[in-house]
Amino acid sequence: MDESCTNNGERLPKSTGTHRNPAHLTEEYSANPEIRHRILDVSDISIAPCTESAYIRPCSMLYKQDGREKRWDFIKTHDSVSIIIYNSSKNALVFVKQFRPGVYVHNTDWDVGKTTIDVAQHPAVAGVTYELCAGIVDKNLPLDAIAQEEVLEETGFSVPTTQLERVTSMRSGVGIAGALQTVYFLEVTDDQREPGRGGGSAKEGELIEVVEIPLEQARTMMFNEHLARPAGFMFSLMWFFTFKYPEIIKRLNGS
Amino acid sequence: MDESCTNNGERLPKSTGTHRNPAHLTEEYSANPEIRHRILDVSDISIAPCTESAYIRPCSMLYKQDGREKRWDFIKTHDSVSIIIYNSSKNALVFVKQFRPGVYVHNTDWDVGKTTIDVAQHPAVAGVTYELCAGIVDKNLPLDAIAQEEVLEETGFSVPTTQLERVTSMRSGVGIAGALQTVYFLEVTDDQREPGRGGGSAKEGELIEVVEIPLEQARTMMFNEHLARPAGFMFSLMWFFTFKYPEIIKRLNGS
Repeated sequence: MDESCTNNGERLPKSTGTHRNPAHLTEEYSANPEIRHRILDVSDISIAPCTESAYIRPCSMLYKQDGREKRWDFIKTHDSVSIIIYNSSKNALVFVKQFRPGVYVHNTDWDVGKTTIDVAQHPAVAGVTYELCAGIVDKNLPLDAIAQEEVLEETGFSVPTTQLERVTSMRSGVGIAGALQTVYFLEVTDDQREPGRGGGSAKEGELIEVVEIPLEQARTMMFNEHLARPAGFMFSLMWFFTFKYPEIIKRLNGS
Repeated sequence: MDESCTNNGERLPKSTGTHRNPAHLTEEYSANPEIRHRILDVSDISIAPCTESAYIRPCSMLYKQDGREKRWDFIKTHDSVSIIIYNSSKNALVFVKQFRPGVYVHNTDWDVGKTTIDVAQHPAVAGVTYELCAGIVDKNLPLDAIAQEEVLEETGFSVPTTQLERVTSMRSGVGIAGALQTVYFLEVTDDQREPGRGGGSAKEGELIEVVEIPLEQARTMMFNEHLARPAGFMFSLMWFFTFKYPEIIKRLNGS
């Protein structure tokens, strides 16, 4: 084993940089104050090394490349689907907001030696993300059927799979993972809401706030770094504003 | 953005390809056959659970949210920078290609129970990604200085930090990680090449092929699902074609 090859010699040091300041994080869009309150009601945080998990499987690949023994540590993860949802009744994009522990931790001064994070100093808002409705591929179902289920479960819209338009797919976290993320586009109307659905699976303890952001605001938030936005979300918004928005504007103008 | 921002009114090609079939994966762009050959020379693969790693730190966060005890497993990872590089001498975008074990594994039929992957059945090309020049934040340096170093190390262009234009930042892998990815734009010329640089750190065992893709081809590859493209790369290309490409076209037309 050539130690110098391990993950290209990239070691995990302390976080650095003044670019990180949770105090500047905001979450400007809320549709449901009650859910918002419950999402932010985070306390009693403790963090420990994870020695066993059903969700993240740390693996090492040993291989020979170009005559050299190498080792690369990676995480085996699930593929996923995500859905860009445009609600034409409201002329708005439908996003989900949730508290993401990984994002929260990366936004604080936490380091591997520490066992707690003080929520008073680092409010839970530092972990609230804006995301597309999405889900992991953990069932033996076509991708569009999984997308359909997630749309209903997270946002409450009941749609046929034929309404889903496949956009593209891409790789997620190529340095440490590499699963496939498939993106769909979906146009819905308020009529397609299923009463009592949306907000995530209560059984699984999911707490999701659905926000419907008018298009002009959605375009602004794409570049608002005070909000935590994933890379796939950013691509999807760029795609929407490039390919769908012009059509929608034409339609709204009746031309 | 208004309609005039949508790539001069031209449409990007629709996605092509089935979502997972390594046999369909190609790597169509090569600038350096020798490096390409060395990158693809992968053999003797074995995969084992990773019980200890300096690079991926599996952690569990235990917390109380909305009165309910919760646990979330995540990976502590590095922040990173990535750079969209436009070489005006060639009217091309500068990308890096490399073999990514995580992507490779996710493209094969490997599952956690298996200990090997047959390279004859799953050629190494299944792990070759197209990425922006990028690097992790593992030094106590300003982000633009780290970006500057990565540009030199990976692509061989020597530029002052003042030449880097900050685009935005986003979160990477919010489900299992959440580190901050900061994106820069950089315009270079062939004059800025540093002889003998680029291709990654040989000391660290990096094997990187630099490819300069003419703009029209780069636009096509964005939606070519036969190529492994990360989410951040996809966003960055969309951004480039929306915000920079129209200016460049005007300049090339002398208007």
